[in-house]
Amino acid sequence: MLMMNEKMDTTINPIHAPRYGGIPTFMRTPLVTDLSEIDIALVGVPYDGAVEVSPGARHGPREIRNKSTMMRSIHHVTRVNPYDLCKIGDIGDVPIPRVFEVVEALADISLFYEKIYSAGVVPLSVGGDHSITLPILRALKPNVPLSLIHFDAHTDTYDEELGYKYTHGTPFRRAVEEGLIDPSRSVQVGIRGAANSEEGWNFSINSGMRVIFMEEFTKLGVEEVVKEIRNIVGETPTYLSYDIDSIDPAFAPGTGTPEIGGLTTLEAQSLIRGLRGVNLIGADVVEVAPGLDPSGVTSLVGATIMYEILCILSESVVK
Amino acid sequence: MLMMNEKMDTTINPIHAPRYGGIPTFMRTPLVTDLSEIDIALVGVPYDGAVEVSPGARHGPREIRNKSTMMRSIHHVTRVNPYDLCKIGDIGDVPIPRVFEVVEALADISLFYEKIYSAGVVPLSVGGDHSITLPILRALKPNVPLSLIHFDAHTDTYDEELGYKYTHGTPFRRAVEEGLIDPSRSVQVGIRGAANSEEGWNFSINSGMRVIFMEEFTKLGVEEVVKEIRNIVGETPTYLSYDIDSIDPAFAPGTGTPEIGGLTTLEAQSLIRGLRGVNLIGADVVEVAPGLDPSGVTSLVGATIMYEILCILSESVVK
Amino acid sequence: MLMMNEKMDTTINPIHAPRYGGIPTFMRTPLVTDLSEIDIALVGVPYDGAVEVSPGARHGPREIRNKSTMMRSIHHVTRVNPYDLCKIGDIGDVPIPRVFEVVEALADISLFYEKIYSAGVVPLSVGGDHSITLPILRALKPNVPLSLIHFDAHTDTYDEELGYKYTHGTPFRRAVEEGLIDPSRSVQVGIRGAANSEEGWNFSINSGMRVIFMEEFTKLGVEEVVKEIRNIVGETPTYLSYDIDSIDPAFAPGTGTPEIGGLTTLEAQSLIRGLRGVNLIGADVVEVAPGLDPSGVTSLVGATIMYEILCILSESVVK
Amino acid sequence: MLMMNEKMDTTINPIHAPRYGGIPTFMRTPLVTDLSEIDIALVGVPYDGAVEVSPGARHGPREIRNKSTMMRSIHHVTRVNPYDLCKIGDIGDVPIPRVFEVVEALADISLFYEKIYSAGVVPLSVGGDHSITLPILRALKPNVPLSLIHFDAHTDTYDEELGYKYTHGTPFRRAVEEGLIDPSRSVQVGIRGAANSEEGWNFSINSGMRVIFMEEFTKLGVEEVVKEIRNIVGETPTYLSYDIDSIDPAFAPGTGTPEIGGLTTLEAQSLIRGLRGVNLIGADVVEVAPGLDPSGVTSLVGATIMYEILCILSESVVK
Amino acid sequence: MLMMNEKMDTTINPIHAPRYGGIPTFMRTPLVTDLSEIDIALVGVPYDGAVEVSPGARHGPREIRNKSTMMRSIHHVTRVNPYDLCKIGDIGDVPIPRVFEVVEALADISLFYEKIYSAGVVPLSVGGDHSITLPILRALKPNVPLSLIHFDAHTDTYDEELGYKYTHGTPFRRAVEEGLIDPSRSVQVGIRGAANSEEGWNFSINSGMRVIFMEEFTKLGVEEVVKEIRNIVGETPTYLSYDIDSIDPAFAPGTGTPEIGGLTTLEAQSLIRGLRGVNLIGADVVEVAPGLDPSGVTSLVGATIMYEILCILSESVVK
Amino acid sequence: MLMMNEKMDTTINPIHAPRYGGIPTFMRTPLVTDLSEIDIALVGVPYDGAVEVSPGARHGPREIRNKSTMMRSIHHVTRVNPYDLCKIGDIGDVPIPRVFEVVEALADISLFYEKIYSAGVVPLSVGGDHSITLPILRALKPNVPLSLIHFDAHTDTYDEELGYKYTHGTPFRRAVEEGLIDPSRSVQVGIRGAANSEEGWNFSINSGMRVIFMEEFTKLGVEEVVKEIRNIVGETPTYLSYDIDSIDPAFAPGTGTPEIGGLTTLEAQSLIRGLRGVNLIGADVVEVAPGLDPSGVTSLVGATIMYEILCILSESVVK
Repeated sequence: MLMMNEKMDTTINPIHAPRYGGIPTFMRTPLVTDLSEIDIALVGVPYDGAVEVSPGARHGPREIRNKSTMMRSIHHVTRVNPYDLCKIGDIGDVPIPRVFEVVEALADISLFYEKIYSAGVVPLSVGGDHSITLPILRALKPNVPLSLIHFDAHTDTYDEELGYKYTHGTPFRRAVEEGLIDPSRSVQVGIRGAANSEEGWNFSINSGMRVIFMEEFTKLGVEEVVKEIRNIVGETPTYLSYDIDSIDPAFAPGTGTPEIGGLTTLEAQSLIRGLRGVNLIGADVVEVAPGLDPSGVTSLVGATIMYEILCILSESVVK
Repeated sequence: MLMMNEKMDTTINPIHAPRYGGIPTFMRTPLVTDLSEIDIALVGVPYDGAVEVSPGARHGPREIRNKSTMMRSIHHVTRVNPYDLCKIGDIGDVPIPRVFEVVEALADISLFYEKIYSAGVVPLSVGGDHSITLPILRALKPNVPLSLIHFDAHTDTYDEELGYKYTHGTPFRRAVEEGLIDPSRSVQVGIRGAANSEEGWNFSINSGMRVIFMEEFTKLGVEEVVKEIRNIVGETPTYLSYDIDSIDPAFAPGTGTPEIGGLTTLEAQSLIRGLRGVNLIGADVVEVAPGLDPSGVTSLVGATIMYEILCILSESVVK
Repeated sequence: MLMMNEKMDTTINPIHAPRYGGIPTFMRTPLVTDLSEIDIALVGVPYDGAVEVSPGARHGPREIRNKSTMMRSIHHVTRVNPYDLCKIGDIGDVPIPRVFEVVEALADISLFYEKIYSAGVVPLSVGGDHSITLPILRALKPNVPLSLIHFDAHTDTYDEELGYKYTHGTPFRRAVEEGLIDPSRSVQVGIRGAANSEEGWNFSINSGMRVIFMEEFTKLGVEEVVKEIRNIVGETPTYLSYDIDSIDPAFAPGTGTPEIGGLTTLEAQSLIRGLRGVNLIGADVVEVAPGLDPSGVTSLVGATIMYEILCILSESVVK
Repeated sequence: MLMMNEKMDTTINPIHAPRYGGIPTFMRTPLVTDLSEIDIALVGVPYDGAVEVSPGARHGPREIRNKSTMMRSIHHVTRVNPYDLCKIGDIGDVPIPRVFEVVEALADISLFYEKIYSAGVVPLSVGGDHSITLPILRALKPNVPLSLIHFDAHTDTYDEELGYKYTHGTPFRRAVEEGLIDPSRSVQVGIRGAANSEEGWNFSINSGMRVIFMEEFTKLGVEEVVKEIRNIVGETPTYLSYDIDSIDPAFAPGTGTPEIGGLTTLEAQSLIRGLRGVNLIGADVVEVAPGLDPSGVTSLVGATIMYEILCILSESVVK
Repeated sequence: MLMMNEKMDTTINPIHAPRYGGIPTFMRTPLVTDLSEIDIALVGVPYDGAVEVSPGARHGPREIRNKSTMMRSIHHVTRVNPYDLCKIGDIGDVPIPRVFEVVEALADISLFYEKIYSAGVVPLSVGGDHSITLPILRALKPNVPLSLIHFDAHTDTYDEELGYKYTHGTPFRRAVEEGLIDPSRSVQVGIRGAANSEEGWNFSINSGMRVIFMEEFTKLGVEEVVKEIRNIVGETPTYLSYDIDSIDPAFAPGTGTPEIGGLTTLEAQSLIRGLRGVNLIGADVVEVAPGLDPSGVTSLVGATIMYEILCILSESVVK
Repeated sequence: MLMMNEKMDTTINPIHAPRYGGIPTFMRTPLVTDLSEIDIALVGVPYDGAVEVSPGARHGPREIRNKSTMMRSIHHVTRVNPYDLCKIGDIGDVPIPRVFEVVEALADISLFYEKIYSAGVVPLSVGGDHSITLPILRALKPNVPLSLIHFDAHTDTYDEELGYKYTHGTPFRRAVEEGLIDPSRSVQVGIRGAANSEEGWNFSINSGMRVIFMEEFTKLGVEEVVKEIRNIVGETPTYLSYDIDSIDPAFAPGTGTPEIGGLTTLEAQSLIRGLRGVNLIGADVVEVAPGLDPSGVTSLVGATIMYEILCILSESVVK
């Protein structure tokens, strides 16, 4: 019987269980409550209170869980099976009791991630809007600022949005200010789209981040960009944050602030595969808004990007 | 922390948990594997292999679980709170290993329900197509044929469909032939739509079932129909089968064989509420096909009908 | 083998042919080119050049053909099987070579219907916008003005729309002026919605038409309205024109000028069934715009209304 | 040239201007900045920060403006033309600079409405979620608590939602506590749907409001309910608040907290028409969420309900 | 008059017939019943009973016929007009009387294709799921195993799926085992996506097929891949099977097992054009599921791929 | 207060105004009626009466205005801020009183553009179907035929479509014949898709236009194509016409005559950016049909292409 709370037995061929059946956990992994049972925690963060235009990413975790039941185990390029390398489980959604105020909601999120990190578990999170990355980084309390690999259409390093310091347009500005990430070991890929002020771009560049706009990405190509990212982060502990809007809206329309002229999914996948061996200590996939996604393809993209990250994350964890 | 595998604590005000969060079980009840913990089992039956035109009801359980997180506990008319009356849990989906052959799939379903009934648990099931009712009834192995209350646009008492005996158009013909239901204590409500042969209607009527076509329903009104149903089934053990296509496609478009001119949801709800006190020993809601339901309203209707049934079922169970 | 150009053999149970297969003709009737083979012609009129706001009804015939494959033969209330009473075939779509000018397009349509009527065949047409009714009536060249039963949200008796005489808001004004229909034997049912001028309502009423607004319909009820319609048209030759927007947009959203507060489909069906025995000499179903109908329910409603009309039309033809 | 900032000239037949053209203001009224030019202000309140489950009503004003271009001037039942009675204009959207905190956002809204009321202008507002009604009532600063006519599936008189006092589930509790409305002259119509606590229903009833649940509405019928509402509010200054979810999701699916078993649009319209002569001093239409409305029918319903209210409001203003 | 059963007269400019009119046959070719009239048969195979996750491809033929009315005759690159080279007609859908059992359904399909091949007609088929290719190959009864050009995200060479031998994931394994295709002259292009077992990939590779995963495709480019395919199949009789999921879901979302990171349509078209001169003896386009395709673009892609294949197939037939 | 009719103050950070608020003008520019206040006019042309298959582009201006509120001011590649360079305003939609006849509608459009050009204002127009470009060119009354840069899937140089001279498939044939454009200084990019006659392609080529089919585009690459376009138009006054169907339907599905195998948005943007410095005297974006665009992405593409053009147009105007 295919029940969610049984451990996924990779010695048995799961091809015999229809993927539309059962209650969907992320990747059909077991739902666990005891963090000591796992190496990597798949976590939902259903929060989008820091969005300006089009909320809806609060529904992201549920729908990505749904589509993630289409995912399988062995990577067709690397032949990595993350479930052979690590113990991986879904630990449900972050509880956010104080949902109506951004600062308090972010504090609630932090609290939960502190438990995860203090248990020695590495989280792969699914948002929610991009504001959730800040409390995750805060929970890590890194001794030394982390390196950052950040895929996005926007730098998310604005000082304020609509007069607020904590929105989905500002997390990496705050993270730098709070000493959570080291801009000189940070790279942003896929940036594009007009802005009403240059201050976001300028902060990223001036603080020392490597900002790879789409036009430069096109010229360099995947391989060169991968090389550069690897050079920037080296062997240092690195957080990977994946905003789905780095990908072109043709491939991933279901997001609140789409910008045309973005990455293809094949480029996105190739970039992540290129990061094998990077010292990852956490990652997230954010800004999937299922209500804006009539064909469901964006949630599928989100689930697949999550799987791609899981493959390199599991290799990093067992290293 | 709002996790699915904690028991729903009705002493705590669940109004503090956002409904879009967490992994969706039916009605946000706990996911249970030990049948001895519950009185009523909420069960998914993700099977639609017996459909002619438009399959997709295999995805019904998952999406109805999703929308059922919008449901709450206290009924606004009867003030019944089923969770106060009974122990209720989600036991996941029926495993159906042999999904490509109808006869074998139905046998797989039966096997699972035998366990439920032998544990003394009453199932409230969510299909799947209407063929699933037959194996549920078979699993009951009633000493005496059951009474049946059946809401549907179609009698589902055809002898064959496309040359097959076991399809979603034939379950109640088979159930009568196999002695599982007593047609003289059976009633079908909401029947309508042209047919290529009168044999379905004729079998129902000639076998002694009370068939209430939509036109007669309109003339009689809810109260009279309720009275008649209660007279027909009396105090006898009764199974309730709810095909979502009994409801008009304006209210519930997401189903494979829609027929215009059906029940409103308010009529549907009033009919179910009228059945308080009937001796129910099981029930199902079938034929919700989420892929045919762009606005999601049909899954919401399915979840609410399920809740309405749960209210009268829980009263029946504690009687 | 289920092929479209075989005659539908009503002695063989068509229940054995899957409805999603085959090239869709209206009601899965044979496609005929020789008018002498049939009594009733099912005709598509893919024209919507006379629409102000939202065109798209030009795609109506194709999608209604598609959904009409869900229709069956024996009416569940009257037990009429139109295919037993009459020879019925699909004669394809009206050719409209001059599609970019309204007046010429209407002339093209007229030409085609002249052939149908001179062959003694009765047409049941599917639009297209409501402008198509005028050329059909012209083709009839009635010696005496016809009686009219007209279901619609709008009277369609404006003098002009956007300065034009021939639009989908004016056909019945023109038909009165051209002596094609007799307003004193005409009735309009379902009228509602604000107007920028009272002249449409006034023309209908002042010319002698019976205009039954929705509010009066609600008060009278289906039976009284049916009685009144029958009194008005009596035994005289009568044309039936069914604008899908007479039905509420909850039931039939896919139309260009929806008005809330309309008929339910059950009321619509009951009204048509009430017209058994009326001396019908032609009918149409218009204004279904599939592109505005995400769930496809409007085309299903259109196909079912067409079937309901076919039942009473076939009785009229054999009388 | 059809431009938005020309005054709608009701002496010229607007039937000559295509409704899909031009920048959409509410009802195609002129966009005004000088409040002294108008009697009734049509106002958008694009705020949904107080929603638990499904935000999106912030997009309501824009899409209702869009669909409102389908509205016309003369009511088909009452023959009232509100533009003949009053000077009516669109004054744009309420500016809400502090959008990320509920309490501050509501204060921003209040500020704007104080200007409207101090200019002697009567607002007809379009939300936004239901939290916006509270700041509107506050801006009125009534000497004596107002009467309230409230259409909704929910009483919105909860004390808290997710631990917060100011959400879209609490405005009328706060309004009673703040002395803005008089519960003994308040009536709530269309209430239905299960609840996790009876406290909302109980507050309404115990405070003296007349709560007409759907079941009682069905028994009483439109006429009796209208009579009762009129008796309750009498000649006193009355605010009318229309939550679109009072209407059944078959008719209005695009809303964040749909409850099946609601009003039909025809019932909704008839109820409003029944309120002619009531002493209205303001009104709103809330909770239309266009992103949840694939066919656009909910925005059409919202625009038409707005028009119906405008008709009775304009009569009240000129009295 | 544009009627389906007239032969498409390529001497007359068909630009004068609106494409939305008429009953849609594939490419607006004549519907033929006499196989002796044609060289190439366009055939629908509305069968999806061998699908695990998301059925719906049974509706593929009808919707691809619909969209194929947008196709025109002269190829813009090669200037080939297939209708000048060959007699081409639509022969309707394969009758599949035994639709509820996979093995029998496949046998029904085989029977029909035996007639086509024995009449010397070359079929271009439209599925349906990928299981339909097996019975087509069986009907060919090749003396020597055929060469195969196979575009797909999946190798479809699994031994079993959900415990069954005959599903849409196994046809080419069976075809090799039954001696219908020669793996050493077979090539699979576009393969990607994780798997729960490597056995599918391994079977393809170990049996001697050339498997070009997406990553290798990206490196080689269209021209190199074309060269390699041509080398592999040489002058031998070759079957071309086109699974729409070889194309990225951004371009073709409407399919049951989408995998991100696939071909663009331009790549897909260029690959097919590169196969001019290959000795094709049949071809199919499968796995288009219209119900999963809200914008209809996938059916358009399916129709265009079909047209591209028709161009090279017609050249092969006349050679 | 954020009102549309205030001038966009680029000294104030517009980041503080939520983009979903307010009545949408193009790019949130002020709505102006006095042409002397602006250098560049953003104009809507809601006309699609010259379309064969799928009308709906008449709704383009309204929905592109809506999505254009997502646009911002500073270009991320060129750092151009068009609002710093020029005075730019939305002047509403072209009035088209005679909408039911193509020739007259085009004349109405011409009349309006004559006013724009005689005021020395440069228009950036949004269709509407492609027939609207002809009357815009006519209004220019150029002394010497203009140069043309034309992005499209189709050459739109057919002599007739469905027997008419003035359709959306013929504007550039007419423009050449009327001496409005000089084919030897004209270039068409993105051409593809089969045709029923070669005469469109042939006219373009034989008249001296440079026609870059998609296949050649792929081989040349963006940079070479840009070079060639610049060589062709040189310093001469040039009109830029952008048909959204030049872009692949994966990126822009919402258009009436989609052709697969087109430009990506990134290619489209790069092409436009490559045209900096070209002597532009007007431009348009046409054929966005919102009703065919379930996810809204096409209108977003339309708005962004419009912004890209605005950047190069403003540089041209101030030169």
